[in-house]
Amino acid sequence: MPDYIAPRRDMNFVLNEVLKIEESYSGFEYYQDKVSAELFNQYLDVAADFCQNEILPLNAVGDRQGCSLKDGVVTTPDGFKAAYDKYVELGFPSLTAREEFGGQGLPNLLRTAIQEMTTACNWAWGMYPSLSHGAMRTINHHGTEQQKQIYLPKLISGQWTGTMCLTEAQAGSDLGQVRTKAVPNENGSYAISGEKIFISAGDHDLAENIVHIVLARLPNAPAGTRGISLFIVPKFNVDAEGNKADRNNVICSSLEHKMGIHGNATCVLNFDAARGYLIGPEHKGLLCMFTFMNAARLSTATQGLAISEASYQGALAYAKDRLALRALGGAQFPEKAADPIIVHPAVRSMLLTQKAFAEGGRILTYLIAHWVDVAGVTQDAAEKKKIEDLLALLTPIAKAFLTEMGVECSKHGMQVFGGHGYISEHGMEQLARDMRIACLYEGTTEIQAIDLLGRKILKSDGVLLNNFTGMIEHFIAEHQNQTGIQPMLSKLSELLAEWKSLTDFVAEKAKTNPDETGAASVDYLYFSGYVTLAYVWAKAAQVAQSQIAAGSTDEFYQAKLATAQFYYSKLLNRTKTHAANILEGGEVVFSLDPEAFKFD
Amino acid sequence: MPDYIAPRRDMNFVLNEVLKIEESYSGFEYYQDKVSAELFNQYLDVAADFCQNEILPLNAVGDRQGCSLKDGVVTTPDGFKAAYDKYVELGFPSLTAREEFGGQGLPNLLRTAIQEMTTACNWAWGMYPSLSHGAMRTINHHGTEQQKQIYLPKLISGQWTGTMCLTEAQAGSDLGQVRTKAVPNENGSYAISGEKIFISAGDHDLAENIVHIVLARLPNAPAGTRGISLFIVPKFNVDAEGNKADRNNVICSSLEHKMGIHGNATCVLNFDAARGYLIGPEHKGLLCMFTFMNAARLSTATQGLAISEASYQGALAYAKDRLALRALGGAQFPEKAADPIIVHPAVRSMLLTQKAFAEGGRILTYLIAHWVDVAGVTQDAAEKKKIEDLLALLTPIAKAFLTEMGVECSKHGMQVFGGHGYISEHGMEQLARDMRIACLYEGTTEIQAIDLLGRKILKSDGVLLNNFTGMIEHFIAEHQNQTGIQPMLSKLSELLAEWKSLTDFVAEKAKTNPDETGAASVDYLYFSGYVTLAYVWAKAAQVAQSQIAAGSTDEFYQAKLATAQFYYSKLLNRTKTHAANILEGGEVVFSLDPEAFKFD
Repeated sequence: MPDYIAPRRDMNFVLNEVLKIEESYSGFEYYQDKVSAELFNQYLDVAADFCQNEILPLNAVGDRQGCSLKDGVVTTPDGFKAAYDKYVELGFPSLTAREEFGGQGLPNLLRTAIQEMTTACNWAWGMYPSLSHGAMRTINHHGTEQQKQIYLPKLISGQWTGTMCLTEAQAGSDLGQVRTKAVPNENGSYAISGEKIFISAGDHDLAENIVHIVLARLPNAPAGTRGISLFIVPKFNVDAEGNKADRNNVICSSLEHKMGIHGNATCVLNFDAARGYLIGPEHKGLLCMFTFMNAARLSTATQGLAISEASYQGALAYAKDRLALRALGGAQFPEKAADPIIVHPAVRSMLLTQKAFAEGGRILTYLIAHWVDVAGVTQDAAEKKKIEDLLALLTPIAKAFLTEMGVECSKHGMQVFGGHGYISEHGMEQLARDMRIACLYEGTTEIQAIDLLGRKILKSDGVLLNNFTGMIEHFIAEHQNQTGIQPMLSKLSELLAEWKSLTDFVAEKAKTNPDETGAASVDYLYFSGYVTLAYVWAKAAQVAQSQIAAGSTDEFYQAKLATAQFYYSKLLNRTKTHAANILEGGEVVFSLDPEAFKFD
Repeated sequence: MPDYIAPRRDMNFVLNEVLKIEESYSGFEYYQDKVSAELFNQYLDVAADFCQNEILPLNAVGDRQGCSLKDGVVTTPDGFKAAYDKYVELGFPSLTAREEFGGQGLPNLLRTAIQEMTTACNWAWGMYPSLSHGAMRTINHHGTEQQKQIYLPKLISGQWTGTMCLTEAQAGSDLGQVRTKAVPNENGSYAISGEKIFISAGDHDLAENIVHIVLARLPNAPAGTRGISLFIVPKFNVDAEGNKADRNNVICSSLEHKMGIHGNATCVLNFDAARGYLIGPEHKGLLCMFTFMNAARLSTATQGLAISEASYQGALAYAKDRLALRALGGAQFPEKAADPIIVHPAVRSMLLTQKAFAEGGRILTYLIAHWVDVAGVTQDAAEKKKIEDLLALLTPIAKAFLTEMGVECSKHGMQVFGGHGYISEHGMEQLARDMRIACLYEGTTEIQAIDLLGRKILKSDGVLLNNFTGMIEHFIAEHQNQTGIQPMLSKLSELLAEWKSLTDFVAEKAKTNPDETGAASVDYLYFSGYVTLAYVWAKAAQVAQSQIAAGSTDEFYQAKLATAQFYYSKLLNRTKTHAANILEGGEVVFSLDPEAFKFD
């Protein structure tokens, strides 16, 4: 496993200088006394210490050992339970939960910063506590008062964990095909029967009970997505006082063998008339699920940034240390056997790419997490609507774009190591394998793309897009006289205009052929991702440039500006390809009939 | 493991319709009676049967079991030895070897087509016989008559295998740092001592002896690359009659744990005064090595195409079978629970991308293999020079570009499977893990890029480039009046002009700063790769269009044209990004000092 040091300087830059947390949370009563640079620092200190010293050393172990299933019992890798106990003891599970059930009520933003570190240090381990949040959030939003009383306190304390049971063998992206049945019992509970697959943290030995949130169909439910309801199904039944009772009929029948995240138990769960409780209205399960789904997608975006950072750190250390060949312009370290490979421009470009995606991704995910906080507490209906629209737009962008960039960065990380990148002991290939799941789960990149272009952009008739571009235009106008960043701002302006014109182009095409939306969607998603990251990089550059103009000699700001420059000069050129592909239209994609695709 | 069927129709299209093998080999006496469509078909039938039925079923087994080392003995996965025995029995190791030592003297082209199939079915297994060719080739080119007599017959029969021992812990891309020592013994042999790492097929139980070709330094050798010599070091010493004798002092001290190719033994080899024999002139080992290196790079390019094809086949079968959601324009298979995912444009785009890279890659690698054959036998010095120049230029392009595209295609393969792509039993993730080595070994993508732009393009002052573009221009002129392919030909023309102008741009920049070459190299490599593939796709389109014009109703030709169109409309747009990046120059890459890269 490569070393990892929590990038505290940059995290603080985003928190205190870009998002200005003390100022931006100060208007909300809920967050009084809960947000300050000092408080965040204290939490982040503890979390960084925990991540670097407790779970980072378990990352390679977890990958090697994986989880095991014997006699119906799932065992996690050595050390995972002790680390989880410590995490609970430190109070992390309750961080953002509501205070009435034992939570600390702190901002999502803080949890996002912490999740960045847990993921960078040990993705597989981090998924256990992370999945619990989905269950907590669902019960909190849609549960009855009694359900909250029974389940929330122990989920919040971390004594229990949670899962989300959506997928079945025939129903993944298309949850309308879910077949699991829920038959009413006489006592108001339901008998849940069916098989769920790909259930992350679906069974394990970390906590005394597991609360499954399960999608199933009531008898005579309408077919498709409008006939799915949501149920709470605990691993151990719970008595009226909220104590663990007898074993429920839900068992892990097998564990999947996967490319990565070996330390996390990906379970096939069999429900055999397991006792469950309806949560939310009948047949509205999928709607309720979206509460969780959007949060899960944002959390996945954070995973993308985390691995971009971890692979950057690993590659950077190696690039400074590894000696190979001489700089083309002549030896830069003549006293050494060869120059460190960081002198080679191809290596340096990969490092700058990783740095640009990690740091840009950090600003984007923290900004979104901040908006989630504000949307949750603002009393201003217009502001709430505006932010919810931003979140609707940016969720698929952040999820898909940052995970794809995480895959790219983890590939660069291996590439900087040369052949050593392929060898397990260096840990770079594990980062790449772990990272790869994120473009698949919580909705594939292609599902995010169609959500973005179809449901968010076209269906809102451009309102969601204009809401966001208007905000960026406001930022540009605000800083257009600031020396040193004008070239970036005018490039950003051009991109906004191009974004709108591409949108109009697809909207027009889609009028006569709806498949044009699908054909344009993935390129459109990437285009949107690059522009979105250009916006946050402009924000970072604006802050850094201001500091330099004010006389700061901290080289952090110079490095920030240089990275912004690299992003604008080299990575933004990728928009040219995506724009050109969109303008080609979908005809060449449709021209070959399915039966003409063959090879024998 | 996904099913795989040798794409015989397309292989024959390339062999008989694009390369026209009966015609193009007919002028060479060496290949009289050795090349015909029928003969190739017979060999390919046997090879396809062997690959599909013998080694494909071992691919998942090999991945799961890997190799093991116990008491100094390396054991390959179950079934690997039996399959190797059968391969030897079928006579494949001797296919292209010289007839005087028991070879069949057949074209490299045939072996390339067969290697495509072995790799697609079982990459790890295929490396064992493949590595032998490096050893054979080196001994054949640089060995003494006696060395040939002793080693070649048993390597050619497959009774023994070979390896290439280049890399050491501190010396990978930079072989100038090799430290292994060769001290002369009194009898003319040498005592070889040192540690080599990453030795593929370095030890195993498939063959009775292994012939290592080892880079080492003689006493008082000059430092760096000009002081390295090449040695033959057999695992078991060999007596004067060429029979296996006592064990030599070379042992496998450990096996690497890797991301993929688990079935191939990647060894750390310790040479402790092992008996070795100088091959080729003193201190010229690296030069001799290039004979092997270029062949290995071309063989790696074939691996890229093979996995593009295998992942295409896997994804295609799944996309036709898997039901999820409805086409945006309305249900296309209303009688089914949902539409097969091949109706979704995003899925279809991924399939077309895989198809375009697999089929385009096939033409390119077969074309190169054909040129290797011609260069080996032509009596026409000008033709030989021209072809050697083409090979010099296209080797880094084919190696780097086709392996990177193989990585991309294997990623699409997983993506089409959604979450199931991450699960080992489907085999798609193994393809991605196995594929990943190819951008690292035999010179990383970045090493190929600098070889292309620095050594091949700029150092030849454009001669190598003009040689190739001249050939393409000739092709364009020849077919410019053919209906239906003009838009492709004029696009190709434009790209050639752009390629040259980008080359001039970098050449000019590099005059004042040699690092500009490095900064442009990777984008330049990709640009070159896309144009090169555009050339071979134009060739394919030209043939297909001619058949259609002549009245053929074979839908193969329609599919070929549609795929060419997709390549030209969608994939070629990627050149826009690479061109723009080159024109940005390297300044933003150099602007950050190595010490300013940090994160804490």
